[in-house]
Amino acid sequence: MIGADDVRAAARVLDGVAHRTPVITSRTLGEHVVLKPENLQRGGAFKFRGAYNKISSLPRGANVVAFSSGNHAQAVALASSLLGAKATILMPEDAPASKLAATRGYGAEVVSYDRYAGNREAIAASMAEELGAEIVPPYDDPLIVAGQGTAALELLEDAGVVDTLVVPLGGGGLISGCALIAKELGVQRVVGVEPEAGNDWQQSFAAGRIVAIDVPRTIADGLQTHAPGEVTWEIASRLVDEIVTVTDEQIVDAMRFTFERLKLVIEPSGAVGLAAVREGLASGGRIGVIVSGGNVAADRFAQLLRI
Amino acid sequence: MIGADDVRAAARVLDGVAHRTPVITSRTLGEHVVLKPENLQRGGAFKFRGAYNKISSLPRGANVVAFSSGNHAQAVALASSLLGAKATILMPEDAPASKLAATRGYGAEVVSYDRYAGNREAIAASMAEELGAEIVPPYDDPLIVAGQGTAALELLEDAGVVDTLVVPLGGGGLISGCALIAKELGVQRVVGVEPEAGNDWQQSFAAGRIVAIDVPRTIADGLQTHAPGEVTWEIASRLVDEIVTVTDEQIVDAMRFTFERLKLVIEPSGAVGLAAVREGLASGGRIGVIVSGGNVAADRFAQLLRI
Repeated sequence: MIGADDVRAAARVLDGVAHRTPVITSRTLGEHVVLKPENLQRGGAFKFRGAYNKISSLPRGANVVAFSSGNHAQAVALASSLLGAKATILMPEDAPASKLAATRGYGAEVVSYDRYAGNREAIAASMAEELGAEIVPPYDDPLIVAGQGTAALELLEDAGVVDTLVVPLGGGGLISGCALIAKELGVQRVVGVEPEAGNDWQQSFAAGRIVAIDVPRTIADGLQTHAPGEVTWEIASRLVDEIVTVTDEQIVDAMRFTFERLKLVIEPSGAVGLAAVREGLASGGRIGVIVSGGNVAADRFAQLLRI
Repeated sequence: MIGADDVRAAARVLDGVAHRTPVITSRTLGEHVVLKPENLQRGGAFKFRGAYNKISSLPRGANVVAFSSGNHAQAVALASSLLGAKATILMPEDAPASKLAATRGYGAEVVSYDRYAGNREAIAASMAEELGAEIVPPYDDPLIVAGQGTAALELLEDAGVVDTLVVPLGGGGLISGCALIAKELGVQRVVGVEPEAGNDWQQSFAAGRIVAIDVPRTIADGLQTHAPGEVTWEIASRLVDEIVTVTDEQIVDAMRFTFERLKLVIEPSGAVGLAAVREGLASGGRIGVIVSGGNVAADRFAQLLRI
């Protein structure tokens, strides 16, 4: 069981290592909306916070294994290189070349697998055993959760306490950590936002237990989880007040908005919270929004504008 | 004749009004390169600095007239609304709808003209006379030049003095102001960057006098000037060390780089300095680069990626 103090402890670990991303407002959104642009975080997403917090708890020189086709891979690779850990990342063989290159660029070894034939958890587990390595999971881990929560801690320290905090929701690592600290600091409502096509959390909340769905088809590739995690469900089911969903079209509208008005690049998964606010799905007093990442290729962005 | 103290005076005028944009570095570019992202400035470009500095020198409630199809229009409109001036902006009738809307959104009156039939300077002059208004020129004015120079002053204050300062070059307002303060603070080389198709400054430097060219065809729409200004030529011909040029393709490469690596949107004109550094055209010690603006529509960006 972790709490707000674990988030504070993670903040001390990350101090001077993670970027303290700014808080920003936009006249168009209204001064009551405060954004926390984690696209400007090291590695391009909030994922660095949790990965660094986790890996820093291991002995120096440790072997770590992670499985991810996206931001978590880059985060583990970057955190490992900073902490002197040796990272092996299991990535699907059809992952974008740019993400493979970025992960290798941080010094990690990349092992490919066939995502249609292999079970990545099983492959990672046997690889970890063989290497004597620790698995760094993408979200379902107390130190990962605590690290991600530092995004909300910084937002509330720098912008003051908000009434409503809006957070993208995939595996639940980000929202769990954010809710732990936000509720202690007096935030009244924590709202999670999922892609409409992948509302495993919304269904789980309705059922009062973890519900698994098929892997969803959505442009928000970072939120294509099929069920809440166990650690994250335990926290988020207690502390999150509401789950709302947005469509792919609303996500693209939000990406276009940040591009043209804020001059910031955000990826589809990073845009869902802002999309919900723009659609009036998350309102109430002062609103803080975590914009969780910006790792989208320029050509992919161009393609998304045409959907 | 203006000098570095006029830039310092402008900085006092702009204090708390203009954004103090950050200075940023990128591991990929190398730690010796420091960027000043004026795409994050109010109105999306450095132009706000000069416009505000100029209009603040006029009596409150003054009428002002400006002609521009781009960033200067928005800057004059925004500065006027903040200073209680009444702005009338002459814009070509085929200007992008988004720019017309943004200019009107800041409360300015927009007057259209046929850019193929009318002489905009003459129309603006007669309009100014009729309204009893002051013309706020886009670059060829001491107060405009001094205001733009505050971008370099902030960069050098926040990042320390660099050896080389690289600045986009259109009418010359930005580089003139930047060179005035940079040379006084010990910067050794100031390098101006033009689009290859519109090298009126390079030709003027070679000839030792102002040379006019046809309006150039380049994607850098903010740099489509056909000759140096008189005020700006007097300053830049003394203080600028070298003029280099970049191609449209190199500009798009730089825009793609900032999109994917820095998560920042920059417009073609804003990218020329960075493009020059990436191409090795402006080197020497620590390098400061002014990234001058970010006003590009998402759809236009998508279109540019395909050139």
